[in-house]
Amino acid sequence: MENAIRDLCAANGKKIVLLVLDGLGGLPREPGGKTELETAHTPNLDALAAASECGLHLPIGYGVTPGSAPGHLSLFGYDPLEYPIGRGVVAAMGIGFPMKAGDVAARLNFATLDAAGAISDRRAGRIPTEKCAELCELLKAVSVKGVEVFVKPVKDYRAVVVFRGKGLSDAVSDTDPQALGVAPLDPVATDPKAAHTAQVAKEFVAAARKILASQTPANGVLLRGFAELPHIPSMKELYKLNPVALAVYPDYKGVARLVGMEAIEDIADLDGQAKELARLWSSHDFFFIHHKYTDSRGEDGDFDAKVKEIEKVDAFLPRVLAMKPDLLIVTGDHSTPAVSKAHTAHPVPFLLNAGESRPDGIAKFGERECGRGVWGVIPGPMLIRIALGYTGKMKKYGA
Amino acid sequence: MENAIRDLCAANGKKIVLLVLDGLGGLPREPGGKTELETAHTPNLDALAAASECGLHLPIGYGVTPGSAPGHLSLFGYDPLEYPIGRGVVAAMGIGFPMKAGDVAARLNFATLDAAGAISDRRAGRIPTEKCAELCELLKAVSVKGVEVFVKPVKDYRAVVVFRGKGLSDAVSDTDPQALGVAPLDPVATDPKAAHTAQVAKEFVAAARKILASQTPANGVLLRGFAELPHIPSMKELYKLNPVALAVYPDYKGVARLVGMEAIEDIADLDGQAKELARLWSSHDFFFIHHKYTDSRGEDGDFDAKVKEIEKVDAFLPRVLAMKPDLLIVTGDHSTPAVSKAHTAHPVPFLLNAGESRPDGIAKFGERECGRGVWGVIPGPMLIRIALGYTGKMKKYGA
Repeated sequence: MENAIRDLCAANGKKIVLLVLDGLGGLPREPGGKTELETAHTPNLDALAAASECGLHLPIGYGVTPGSAPGHLSLFGYDPLEYPIGRGVVAAMGIGFPMKAGDVAARLNFATLDAAGAISDRRAGRIPTEKCAELCELLKAVSVKGVEVFVKPVKDYRAVVVFRGKGLSDAVSDTDPQALGVAPLDPVATDPKAAHTAQVAKEFVAAARKILASQTPANGVLLRGFAELPHIPSMKELYKLNPVALAVYPDYKGVARLVGMEAIEDIADLDGQAKELARLWSSHDFFFIHHKYTDSRGEDGDFDAKVKEIEKVDAFLPRVLAMKPDLLIVTGDHSTPAVSKAHTAHPVPFLLNAGESRPDGIAKFGERECGRGVWGVIPGPMLIRIALGYTGKMKKYGA
Repeated sequence: MENAIRDLCAANGKKIVLLVLDGLGGLPREPGGKTELETAHTPNLDALAAASECGLHLPIGYGVTPGSAPGHLSLFGYDPLEYPIGRGVVAAMGIGFPMKAGDVAARLNFATLDAAGAISDRRAGRIPTEKCAELCELLKAVSVKGVEVFVKPVKDYRAVVVFRGKGLSDAVSDTDPQALGVAPLDPVATDPKAAHTAQVAKEFVAAARKILASQTPANGVLLRGFAELPHIPSMKELYKLNPVALAVYPDYKGVARLVGMEAIEDIADLDGQAKELARLWSSHDFFFIHHKYTDSRGEDGDFDAKVKEIEKVDAFLPRVLAMKPDLLIVTGDHSTPAVSKAHTAHPVPFLLNAGESRPDGIAKFGERECGRGVWGVIPGPMLIRIALGYTGKMKKYGA
């Protein structure tokens, strides 16, 4: 199917906007009550929904709770199960580290080792991020022949290491035994092609231990989740789109770059996103606009604050509409109900607004209303296909 | 799945009618307006919809605009992506040429070559169809050892050539370089098994040039889209049906024959279709009735004329119902909105009327009404499966 789609797509200058409210989907606060989106006062979204085709989407599959990266991959038109993104890559993307094809990244935890070399604390007393950054600076001195090594702080005791060089592979086992009182494991190649990488990792760990020897409590490192960049065909290659990401948070710029999107740096807020949208309007044909805080307030369990974030996006919407996109999708990458304080498996409402469409008379942009929309419940990656079809960016199949 | 279905099917004498209004799906003429089908006065279809299960179908997939041949394959229960139909076959089907398994067909364009043998006009001055037919007659004199050759006019400078013989393959490259000032390319086997066919094509082109040498302006031929009949299991084999096509246009008889349907010749209009339906009622159990002009008027961009064509089919409907089919599907093979003047990717409304079913209370046969029907949006090839199931033509799966 993917190959068929690739052969059918052709650029035509039409403009598609994908506006993502992270964690948009919600749940009623109390039995019989309304969700965050149903509660929010959203006159602009409601008017748009009334002129749109609506539905719900499943980012990954029935019952599957999406992580942020696969949730977005889905919205960009990729089956997340076909393109798993390893822990090391997620960590590197999460801090905006610009991984390249062939790089191998791993999560690095600072740990405490006893005099015998056994692990006494897998989290080094949960050192603060500042300390973590300081230790990462020290590890810049590590040199492994034939590769470049990058060590970057993430949060608390968590960091990420990236190896760059020729012939690397992520088929390497974790050094974290996930147990106390035993020594860290050696990294082992689980495939012959990773023998070199396992050796590189081993040398890195040995050099790091030397440098950290005098540190307290973080005198060792544990590596896990070795991962290469997945080989994802770009949106340009698949869909002949020239896409750009307008996101505030590094994670979302990272996942956008994974599919070949240009990601704009130094955007602070919705105002900045609107300005960049206008600035880039003529040079691109696919615009991914990401709003993080609906998810953050859901994770906080703050129902009212999530409602307010939805209302902020509603107030922002006219600035998108002013550009007169040929097609606009408004949706989320997953549900983050405030009552759950976490991502959940519930389907995510969407509206798809286009000149050539059949508005289905949904009066209010909400989960239950969208559930009555024409599309019912569809797989997330199909949204962009419909968008390509409705804007004439896919040629006719067959004579 | 296909094999499981094949094992479950058994003939039982129940009668299924598939009534296709080509290009049925439409779009509102103006924002907030109605589609062609929603506009049409269709008392018979509306009454039928009220007693039917309704929904929308996607002939090929989300966002994919169907060509006519794959759109019909889908309605006959085949995944069109699994059975691509090449340009040569479409051309041969389009004129009702009875291709057989093993035949290789290619589109043939008459062209003008200069004294040096380079192409000066890829369309030979767009010679009229009469001239094309005359040249095809001349090419009957071409003889290539070991194969039968058929050359048939299509329209203007376009014709089709069919090679019939043992060991032919369609893995042959185009001779049309799609450029002027260069000589036609030699046909080349893109797979070793096509070496013989490439040689046959080369000899045909050389012989054709000799015969056409004194012609002006059509003194050469260009071949493209070499294609074999796809190996499609017949509806008889898969579904144990004995199907018949009641179509006016050759293309639809052609695609029906591809799946092993009998196709009746010399039907002029809906009246002829009704008469044939009655005549063949006792000898067949699947009846495909095709109405072309809904699509034609959509392609013309004539909204009102498309509405009228729908109303003609509505007036025809009682003649189908008079036969008391056990199950009747009314739908289209794709959407051809008058505002688009082309096939589009929009889902297609359908109704499925059967004794054993659960009418969903749709009051009007229209895109938005069907979107509220029980089936939501389903893949086109599933329609016939539901029909087989509801008429008891598929046995129970498992004990």
